[in-house]
Amino acid sequence: MKTSQDYRDRLNEMKSNVFINGEKVNRSDSRLQGAIKTISLSFDLVNDPKMKDLLTATSHISGERINRFTHIHQSVEDLMKKQEMTREICRKSFGCIFRCMGIDAMNALSIITHRAEAMTGKPYNERWLKYLKFWQENDIVATCAQTDVKGDRSLRPHQQADPDLYLRVIEHRDDGIVVRGAKNHITAAAIAEEIIVTPTRFLTDKEDQYAVSFAIPGDWDNVYLVTRAENMKQREHLSCPAGEKGDVENFIIFDDAFIPNERVFLGGNEGEHQFGGWLALLFALYHRHSYTGCKPASTDIILGLSALVAEYNGVENKKHVQSKLADLISVAELVNAAGIASAYKGTRDESGTMIPDAVFCNVGRKHAGKNYYHELETLADLAGGLPATLPFEKDFFDEKIGPFLKKYIKRKEGIPAEDIYRLFRTLSDTLCSSIGGVMAVAGVHGGGSPVMEDIAILKQYDIGERKKIAKYLSGISED
Amino acid sequence: MKTSQDYRDRLNEMKSNVFINGEKVNRSDSRLQGAIKTISLSFDLVNDPKMKDLLTATSHISGERINRFTHIHQSVEDLMKKQEMTREICRKSFGCIFRCMGIDAMNALSIITHRAEAMTGKPYNERWLKYLKFWQENDIVATCAQTDVKGDRSLRPHQQADPDLYLRVIEHRDDGIVVRGAKNHITAAAIAEEIIVTPTRFLTDKEDQYAVSFAIPGDWDNVYLVTRAENMKQREHLSCPAGEKGDVENFIIFDDAFIPNERVFLGGNEGEHQFGGWLALLFALYHRHSYTGCKPASTDIILGLSALVAEYNGVENKKHVQSKLADLISVAELVNAAGIASAYKGTRDESGTMIPDAVFCNVGRKHAGKNYYHELETLADLAGGLPATLPFEKDFFDEKIGPFLKKYIKRKEGIPAEDIYRLFRTLSDTLCSSIGGVMAVAGVHGGGSPVMEDIAILKQYDIGERKKIAKYLSGISED
Amino acid sequence: MKTSQDYRDRLNEMKSNVFINGEKVNRSDSRLQGAIKTISLSFDLVNDPKMKDLLTATSHISGERINRFTHIHQSVEDLMKKQEMTREICRKSFGCIFRCMGIDAMNALSIITHRAEAMTGKPYNERWLKYLKFWQENDIVATCAQTDVKGDRSLRPHQQADPDLYLRVIEHRDDGIVVRGAKNHITAAAIAEEIIVTPTRFLTDKEDQYAVSFAIPGDWDNVYLVTRAENMKQREHLSCPAGEKGDVENFIIFDDAFIPNERVFLGGNEGEHQFGGWLALLFALYHRHSYTGCKPASTDIILGLSALVAEYNGVENKKHVQSKLADLISVAELVNAAGIASAYKGTRDESGTMIPDAVFCNVGRKHAGKNYYHELETLADLAGGLPATLPFEKDFFDEKIGPFLKKYIKRKEGIPAEDIYRLFRTLSDTLCSSIGGVMAVAGVHGGGSPVMEDIAILKQYDIGERKKIAKYLSGISED
Amino acid sequence: MKTSQDYRDRLNEMKSNVFINGEKVNRSDSRLQGAIKTISLSFDLVNDPKMKDLLTATSHISGERINRFTHIHQSVEDLMKKQEMTREICRKSFGCIFRCMGIDAMNALSIITHRAEAMTGKPYNERWLKYLKFWQENDIVATCAQTDVKGDRSLRPHQQADPDLYLRVIEHRDDGIVVRGAKNHITAAAIAEEIIVTPTRFLTDKEDQYAVSFAIPGDWDNVYLVTRAENMKQREHLSCPAGEKGDVENFIIFDDAFIPNERVFLGGNEGEHQFGGWLALLFALYHRHSYTGCKPASTDIILGLSALVAEYNGVENKKHVQSKLADLISVAELVNAAGIASAYKGTRDESGTMIPDAVFCNVGRKHAGKNYYHELETLADLAGGLPATLPFEKDFFDEKIGPFLKKYIKRKEGIPAEDIYRLFRTLSDTLCSSIGGVMAVAGVHGGGSPVMEDIAILKQYDIGERKKIAKYLSGISED
Repeated sequence: MKTSQDYRDRLNEMKSNVFINGEKVNRSDSRLQGAIKTISLSFDLVNDPKMKDLLTATSHISGERINRFTHIHQSVEDLMKKQEMTREICRKSFGCIFRCMGIDAMNALSIITHRAEAMTGKPYNERWLKYLKFWQENDIVATCAQTDVKGDRSLRPHQQADPDLYLRVIEHRDDGIVVRGAKNHITAAAIAEEIIVTPTRFLTDKEDQYAVSFAIPGDWDNVYLVTRAENMKQREHLSCPAGEKGDVENFIIFDDAFIPNERVFLGGNEGEHQFGGWLALLFALYHRHSYTGCKPASTDIILGLSALVAEYNGVENKKHVQSKLADLISVAELVNAAGIASAYKGTRDESGTMIPDAVFCNVGRKHAGKNYYHELETLADLAGGLPATLPFEKDFFDEKIGPFLKKYIKRKEGIPAEDIYRLFRTLSDTLCSSIGGVMAVAGVHGGGSPVMEDIAILKQYDIGERKKIAKYLSGISED
Repeated sequence: MKTSQDYRDRLNEMKSNVFINGEKVNRSDSRLQGAIKTISLSFDLVNDPKMKDLLTATSHISGERINRFTHIHQSVEDLMKKQEMTREICRKSFGCIFRCMGIDAMNALSIITHRAEAMTGKPYNERWLKYLKFWQENDIVATCAQTDVKGDRSLRPHQQADPDLYLRVIEHRDDGIVVRGAKNHITAAAIAEEIIVTPTRFLTDKEDQYAVSFAIPGDWDNVYLVTRAENMKQREHLSCPAGEKGDVENFIIFDDAFIPNERVFLGGNEGEHQFGGWLALLFALYHRHSYTGCKPASTDIILGLSALVAEYNGVENKKHVQSKLADLISVAELVNAAGIASAYKGTRDESGTMIPDAVFCNVGRKHAGKNYYHELETLADLAGGLPATLPFEKDFFDEKIGPFLKKYIKRKEGIPAEDIYRLFRTLSDTLCSSIGGVMAVAGVHGGGSPVMEDIAILKQYDIGERKKIAKYLSGISED
Repeated sequence: MKTSQDYRDRLNEMKSNVFINGEKVNRSDSRLQGAIKTISLSFDLVNDPKMKDLLTATSHISGERINRFTHIHQSVEDLMKKQEMTREICRKSFGCIFRCMGIDAMNALSIITHRAEAMTGKPYNERWLKYLKFWQENDIVATCAQTDVKGDRSLRPHQQADPDLYLRVIEHRDDGIVVRGAKNHITAAAIAEEIIVTPTRFLTDKEDQYAVSFAIPGDWDNVYLVTRAENMKQREHLSCPAGEKGDVENFIIFDDAFIPNERVFLGGNEGEHQFGGWLALLFALYHRHSYTGCKPASTDIILGLSALVAEYNGVENKKHVQSKLADLISVAELVNAAGIASAYKGTRDESGTMIPDAVFCNVGRKHAGKNYYHELETLADLAGGLPATLPFEKDFFDEKIGPFLKKYIKRKEGIPAEDIYRLFRTLSDTLCSSIGGVMAVAGVHGGGSPVMEDIAILKQYDIGERKKIAKYLSGISED
Repeated sequence: MKTSQDYRDRLNEMKSNVFINGEKVNRSDSRLQGAIKTISLSFDLVNDPKMKDLLTATSHISGERINRFTHIHQSVEDLMKKQEMTREICRKSFGCIFRCMGIDAMNALSIITHRAEAMTGKPYNERWLKYLKFWQENDIVATCAQTDVKGDRSLRPHQQADPDLYLRVIEHRDDGIVVRGAKNHITAAAIAEEIIVTPTRFLTDKEDQYAVSFAIPGDWDNVYLVTRAENMKQREHLSCPAGEKGDVENFIIFDDAFIPNERVFLGGNEGEHQFGGWLALLFALYHRHSYTGCKPASTDIILGLSALVAEYNGVENKKHVQSKLADLISVAELVNAAGIASAYKGTRDESGTMIPDAVFCNVGRKHAGKNYYHELETLADLAGGLPATLPFEKDFFDEKIGPFLKKYIKRKEGIPAEDIYRLFRTLSDTLCSSIGGVMAVAGVHGGGSPVMEDIAILKQYDIGERKKIAKYLSGISED
């Protein structure tokens, strides 16, 4: 298995195709380092006693011990461990590990390339298996570029004024395809070694050209990574994991990029539109399964911050505080339960890959998404106004002003002023920072917006069976 | 295994100690028949192909095939099947099967009598095992009388002005004990063969006399069953399962009743108060596990009624209707997932009995309870006003008025007027009947009021671990 | 002004056209008496010192002192007093006074007949003024029959398979019109002296025949009042206002009924469809204004019951109880505030009638509707399970069982057992009775379903102005 | 009346006592300019035709035309206009005008100094009236420093380990008092000409020394303004009002500051504790009244942004979008209605000042606070992920990358790419910025935390009257 140093070395060797606020930069740019540090955790914790068993797995193709972020799930237990690994590591990374997208895309591709090869005869699965070998041997960090820019939301891909508003194949060559379009909201692309591209939605038979999936190195020719990158506001005296958090979001442009055949897993050929739709849904499903791990971790963090600030304020044992803590626990554990149930009720695909149950994954993700802003509200409620009005760090350590602040920030007896300041600084970073806001929006939309989960739930659920119950109870005969 | 006829025969042989609205009645009283019919389902469906595997189990003491409602859970699978059985059978019984209390109490006793015998040397487990044998051989229908009347809610048992406001031992004899007190909210006692009594809450060392548990036949001497019994408003033309629903709730008075030793499972002796508290919590835990089965069934019914009325009204495919159906599904499946996770993360007690995970059971029950009135609101919203204003049955079949009602009740083309009427009659019974109201109150309080679930969650959950996460992220050192 | 005896005398003189469960009955039928008693309050309280100023007004046509339930609002103060009168009287009537529909319809007609006469030249306002004189002189109790049966909800009136699914004019004669159709959800029609009919929705130019409004005596020829009538479950020992509550809901059939010209206020003639739509909306507006009075009264009752049961249980001062009481108050007073603001921002129509502001009325009604089930949930939460399991009255007064119940129902010291029983009986009637369920459904749908309020709000509100704010702040130039 | 130039000139003449992140700065510091610009609006719009009538008033002491932000409310209409002024001006200032605190404190002082002078004989009102004259003549910008740092929240002021954790008088001199303590969460103190200090809560008779109120110039000796100041992330190409928003929050230290008698309005003398509590509550009441103006403005902005992004996305007319817009409207207009009702039901104090109704103000503020995070959630939901992932400005205008972004950001036909970018930039500033987070926390806590509003509501509301209703309905006799 590789180390985080290997990962960073490889990033540093990549060509410059990252754009940040008008500059073309290398991957050593300081604005990328917060997020790179986060991803490094997924390598560094591999030998941590608590994480070892979760963070590694045995490859079903090589039999080697591999990082679980490169593993194709073979069993219920694999799904359970992926969820638990995600929760554990996201607690340490202050909310997101940035590495689930790659593995979620690979699991979806394991199934769809298998199905597409069986149905079309094209060697999609054969290519993908080679790619998987490379992936597992090199412990690859990847992102998945799924979301198209979508133009007018009331029109389908082929109805758009500009057909490029969904990424598509514009040329089929003997040795590969040429693609044009853009993907947005792509987290961590500028710090990923590989980018896996998938369609974004169900497609009709007029939309075969949009049924395209492939993988490219992050610095591929004619691919531009427009990057919104930021770190938490810098700290001088008070460095800590929360303060080192960064975020990287990408708008990726495919400027008629050529993709060689061996990296094409779905080629946008005639008759392939349905594989595109299945792949879109299946990636989303695996990704929502990831959320049953990371969202409980977010709630763990919010709960921990809430309980700690209540303790410092001297009100932890008040009944109304306790009731709010119980509500937070309920959110975390219902989402967690949904993940567990989705694994327990998972099914094995013909390809051998385990698929978590779709209804449970979606009700879990939906519940997490519905509650994220409310969790922030609870945290704000318990924290009081100080996250919004906390004096800056240099004042706290200022020779003249500092002693006053240390005197007046005191709360419950025995809690040092600096600890109080540290806590409120993290609260401020959570509630009143640009990255905190990004996490909230991602809490709603990441892995699929609320309405997408409703659609997925309604598609899978047997409402007809419940109507039969209603008819049976009412004495209405079945037709 | 016994039949529902055996059950009814045995009821009819019982002495009269049932009081309904000023009358002392036999168990053949018509007001009890709706609920008796419901319980009969638990016998009758034993050979139904869909239910057979769920409704029976192999006794771990006799190796015989028994009704699962008399089984002590030995494995994760047993817990899963109990949950699934409960959901399946409650769909058919319009929401409650009345038989979970007995089995939940027996499972709790399997553990506490084992622990108490080990720690006190008294033959509590030995007695209970004999009683279990009788139970399984006779396929016993039992209720559990847990809730004391409690007097002033701000005072503990031993602080009450009247010490009898919690049931207690008032005399220890060589051959048994004498108990005094009352239990209320006891569902189905008047139609149960056996009543199992347990304490209602944690007890202090001043409250040993309240740490008492025993089983008695329903018609025991000096035990009076004051009974609130009712059936759905009668139907003449439109009989159906929903219309046959009944409910039986009891206020049980123990007028210095003598309980012989062989039926005493916890004797209220010095030093036994903590077994009382444990038993109270453990019964509640098993009972909340039951709710992860029956509450999804309630939601199945509400969802089926909602979808059917939307179909009849011609609006089933409208997006806002679909979104409400997805919300109902989410409630059912999050509660279901909590049950599944509680089994999967269950632990085996020293006695051999499986205990479901407490946090999952409680967040599941809490979520169900929080949503019940809201589910009714959704149903009322989709149904419109007609459940509240539906003309009576005889008007619908009246020679003069009937044809008009049949003309004007029509909705979507092709749905017969009578089917529409039948559906709205069930909606009316659900939303606008005494029993419907009882079900709603039970939706909030059954198996423990919301605040009790918060207490149970907070007691079990490791909030300290989450505070450590908050400290780690903020750079606050552990003390 | 008339007395309640006058009202009852006149009811008793009416012809029999009321159908209850297959019987044709007189208005002296016992099932109607609960609701008649409620309406009688609106006569009897006219001299109550607290109510006198609210319950009477000075007629703008005769200058006489009249019952405010027959008054056409002439000023902001009139609207304020109508709201306040409604709240005060609904507190005494346990939630609904049954008399607002008539006066709301009359106010709407004052405006629309005025406008229609001006625009069509037909003497609609002239006829209506004569009718008003009769109304005020006789202190008439009326209902408004607005809601059509509507058939397939996805189709407009003229698209229905059966054109009668919305009430319509089927024949225009020199001396009047003949109407066919049915109205449902019509509260109190069987105990009203007059029935005022209005359209139910906006109409297109293909729907002139549906633009019809008129008034008839309740016992008019070829009009059949199919009646769902019920009283609270009878009490023997514990009579009280809550126990005397009744409800009357009607499905009214117009079997080609002839309406003479002097009672026709909108005739379904060519070109009149838009008056129909305006009338529908305006009645709804006045009726939602009524809800800003009656819904705060409902919350007053729920709040009073909640606070009293918390007091009896000994927990009134607990913080979580207090927080729930504060939530109830907020519902009542936001709805109240919406009513006050709607009057304060009301406008005077050309006819002289005051129209309350539509946005405020609708956000008020919407807020009340959104909270009704939640208020019941709060009440159930604070009351505990006893409303669902309360022993019947005769047991409480039984010689043998009664003393036990009196001993064991005790709560906080000093509260007599009978008072506790009385309170829980009212709680049971509120939460677990057919009428309680009807009130909840009416809480959602009465005066217009939630979606209708959204439509009304969106129609009136200047969203464009808010978009301009967004553009101004963002630096986007107006087109 | 003064101009914004006068205001800025006076700020520039002030002594340097502002500390920002370790530096002592003048009021010309760039980090203060965003908020100064906002306050300038309150001067600049005085002649705007739409605002003139709202933003000015006639002084009741001088008869001169004055800025309404310096006016003491004399009538219901004054209260109505203050609310409306606040809403109008906060729409333009992107959410907060920073000037309400001063006028709210002055109105509260007009009453309490009057009462205190009458009851103690000290010339508190006389001093305050002189100060008011100076205030109105100079069109003073002030803040109110109310919130003490409070230490352990479970202890009262006099119980704290350090008695300075609430500001207090430490010395009474002939010519004034010396005060020690700190106030935090004080918005805009560093850009205010005057700071008015009031107590923060009810006080007991052991806490007279904390019953102190006075006014000082912002640059007073021994007063240090520790300042958290920030502007929205700078824009180069896309300047606009939203982009110029700034925020200033202060932690104010009173390092044994001397206050001369003429500026002391409550002196912390023996027996004065109750005036302190009344003043605390009365300032809070006026400030919550201000929120009934500014919070509807926040919702106007969120509604405008929501409707505009829905329009740009091509989904504005979808029913689920419309329903969300209707929900936003309801929040704004219920809060607005609460303000209107509070004025309409206001009372005139003996001092002549109008006091808005406390229950209406508090239910309005509470409703706004309860909904703020939910409104952000709605906005995030409708906006999609782009606020969190929007490429930076210089990329959008970059020669190479810009054209791609302009191509791919397109949505509904006819909307220019730059307008789309501008809108999403404002959305990003609202949802994903430090200031956006501060506004959300202020949405919960500004003007008093949720629990404070509950306390205020419960203190004022006649729950006993509602219990009487419950007793009347249940037939329980009054004691």
